[in-house]
Amino acid sequence: MEETAGIGIDELDLAARNHAMPHEALRYDVTPVGLHYLLTHYDIPDVDPSSYRLTIGGHVTRPRSLTLAELRDRPSVTAQVTLECAGNGRALLEPRAISQPWLRGAVGTAAWTGTPLAPLLAEAEPGAGAIDVAFAGLDHGIESDVEQDYERGLSLAEASRPDLLLAYEMNGQPLPPQHGFPLRLIVPGWYGMAHVKWLTRIRVLDTAFDGYQNVTGYRLRAHEEETGTPIERIAVRSMMVPPGFSTFLPRTRVLDAGPVLLSGRAWSGAAPIALVEVSTDGGATWAEATLGPEPPPHAWRSWSFDWDALPGRHTVCSRATDAGDATQPDAPVWNVGGYLNNAVERIDIEVRAGRGIARV
Amino acid sequence: MEETAGIGIDELDLAARNHAMPHEALRYDVTPVGLHYLLTHYDIPDVDPSSYRLTIGGHVTRPRSLTLAELRDRPSVTAQVTLECAGNGRALLEPRAISQPWLRGAVGTAAWTGTPLAPLLAEAEPGAGAIDVAFAGLDHGIESDVEQDYERGLSLAEASRPDLLLAYEMNGQPLPPQHGFPLRLIVPGWYGMAHVKWLTRIRVLDTAFDGYQNVTGYRLRAHEEETGTPIERIAVRSMMVPPGFSTFLPRTRVLDAGPVLLSGRAWSGAAPIALVEVSTDGGATWAEATLGPEPPPHAWRSWSFDWDALPGRHTVCSRATDAGDATQPDAPVWNVGGYLNNAVERIDIEVRAGRGIARV
Repeated sequence: MEETAGIGIDELDLAARNHAMPHEALRYDVTPVGLHYLLTHYDIPDVDPSSYRLTIGGHVTRPRSLTLAELRDRPSVTAQVTLECAGNGRALLEPRAISQPWLRGAVGTAAWTGTPLAPLLAEAEPGAGAIDVAFAGLDHGIESDVEQDYERGLSLAEASRPDLLLAYEMNGQPLPPQHGFPLRLIVPGWYGMAHVKWLTRIRVLDTAFDGYQNVTGYRLRAHEEETGTPIERIAVRSMMVPPGFSTFLPRTRVLDAGPVLLSGRAWSGAAPIALVEVSTDGGATWAEATLGPEPPPHAWRSWSFDWDALPGRHTVCSRATDAGDATQPDAPVWNVGGYLNNAVERIDIEVRAGRGIARV
Repeated sequence: MEETAGIGIDELDLAARNHAMPHEALRYDVTPVGLHYLLTHYDIPDVDPSSYRLTIGGHVTRPRSLTLAELRDRPSVTAQVTLECAGNGRALLEPRAISQPWLRGAVGTAAWTGTPLAPLLAEAEPGAGAIDVAFAGLDHGIESDVEQDYERGLSLAEASRPDLLLAYEMNGQPLPPQHGFPLRLIVPGWYGMAHVKWLTRIRVLDTAFDGYQNVTGYRLRAHEEETGTPIERIAVRSMMVPPGFSTFLPRTRVLDAGPVLLSGRAWSGAAPIALVEVSTDGGATWAEATLGPEPPPHAWRSWSFDWDALPGRHTVCSRATDAGDATQPDAPVWNVGGYLNNAVERIDIEVRAGRGIARV
């Protein structure tokens, strides 16, 4: 695995409480609860569903306050959506931003059930001149000396997309506490920071939202002095189910020689996946993988590739391209916050002879 | 938080895929799936329940092979059991063993449903001279150059305890893949390494079990040359729900001055919890906490303590003692593998004036 400077104990503390998806969980269309990635800025709040309310206010004609039962009584939709943290891959950048030290596991796909946001927003009747919509959670903390309820904004146009959900179920069960019980916003195609958990307050604004998570956090900046741009949609990426089996530490892969079906997932928040390529020589040459069935609009797509593994050391990798012609770079593009690292992953494998059919 | 040398990327890789329980989840009697700690030695296996079998063999008169349906048809019991990793606290030792770098979150309590092991074992009729029972999982990997299915042994006497379970449900749902689907052994009171996941093979032995996880791993050793002793029961420990709210990084606690109910959990694999004490001055003075209701035999016990938090910096801690008179040490006892670190935890808090009732 790539080298990086030693992780400090404060970063380790975050790495322990925020959970990565183990790579072998790429085998599931829908990631089981407990394997889906998890990132919590402050503490997981303890929410009493009986006193819980979602308010919709600000620059609207008809402010609302809804109970969980009222939200559940509205039309319901289930959508399979891939979520990824914008900081996925951060710890692989050099130098790295001191924050949640993700390697590559900050991803997962769940079946989210909830009610569409757009009709609720329309019923509130945003006033003329409405620009942004801010979504606040019940999680409260301090970040860079700014005390805040976690809050992230979208443009009114984005917030009015028909596929945004107010989700109260994950994989057919009530939302687990750590994924936002009792309600979270789902913004298909966007990085996780937009999918506000423990959602309790929606504010329509006639000015641009200037909250911390839009103007300070989650911005793409080439250097410290730059204002940068807010992070939005998920960059194209693919990952592979690690072939063979693993050692405990370090986690290196061992595989018996012979035919093996390499497989994995690919996703992009910008456009459907158009192509996945696989290399078994560390990226020197590439061949086209077979794409699995067309997935739901914002869920990852499976892919597979037949490989005849000969004894020796090999480096396998996959590379996805979306219908907008965006493709994964060979090396990450460094930025201040360590975001959007969708560079191709290289997996080293020791292929052993002497088991199964002799190959050489 | 205590200092430790930088964590390397291989340890970070383990810290990401193995999940700690965030401290605020101490609020739950039963830890929700996805918040319970998780430690996987190799890969999470992909098990087909229709072809799955549990075999009981070795030094027995009547070997058995059971389907999942046959196991589910047997008498069923649900037990609330606290599990903890023997390496919990490892990364706080100096120098630390290079392994899964746990801070303190490697714990959780679940409601496990399954069928008692003892009657099944008796039906197999262990032969005269049977000594140990080895439990093997479907997880396969390499550890210190030893290729193995994860396998851990118990004495026949321990394996015949009436409260050991072959569990197929966790918190009322089928076992999630990461917690051992379709079957795991539950050994109430013992550290996690005994609760073999993806359990598929039980072998009764007329010799002492000499597998890796008993003779090399999970042993308490004061220095490298020592053979040491196998790790068994959970040492007494308590933890506190972190008061107030948190900053993002580092995670420091902020609390508004005023009365606050400190609370947490205490557990021991050796005996019931007899006493929990709390200190709000970093361990200089201690006062007795109020114990919650008597829990099921091997589940953690809640405790609480009224504190009148005055503005300023404070260090709060809790200390548990069990009915066998074992108590948490002030500082950890170093050992080669970094096991059994049940030292008292110190939580630093900044108490702010000026909110709520004025205090000074």
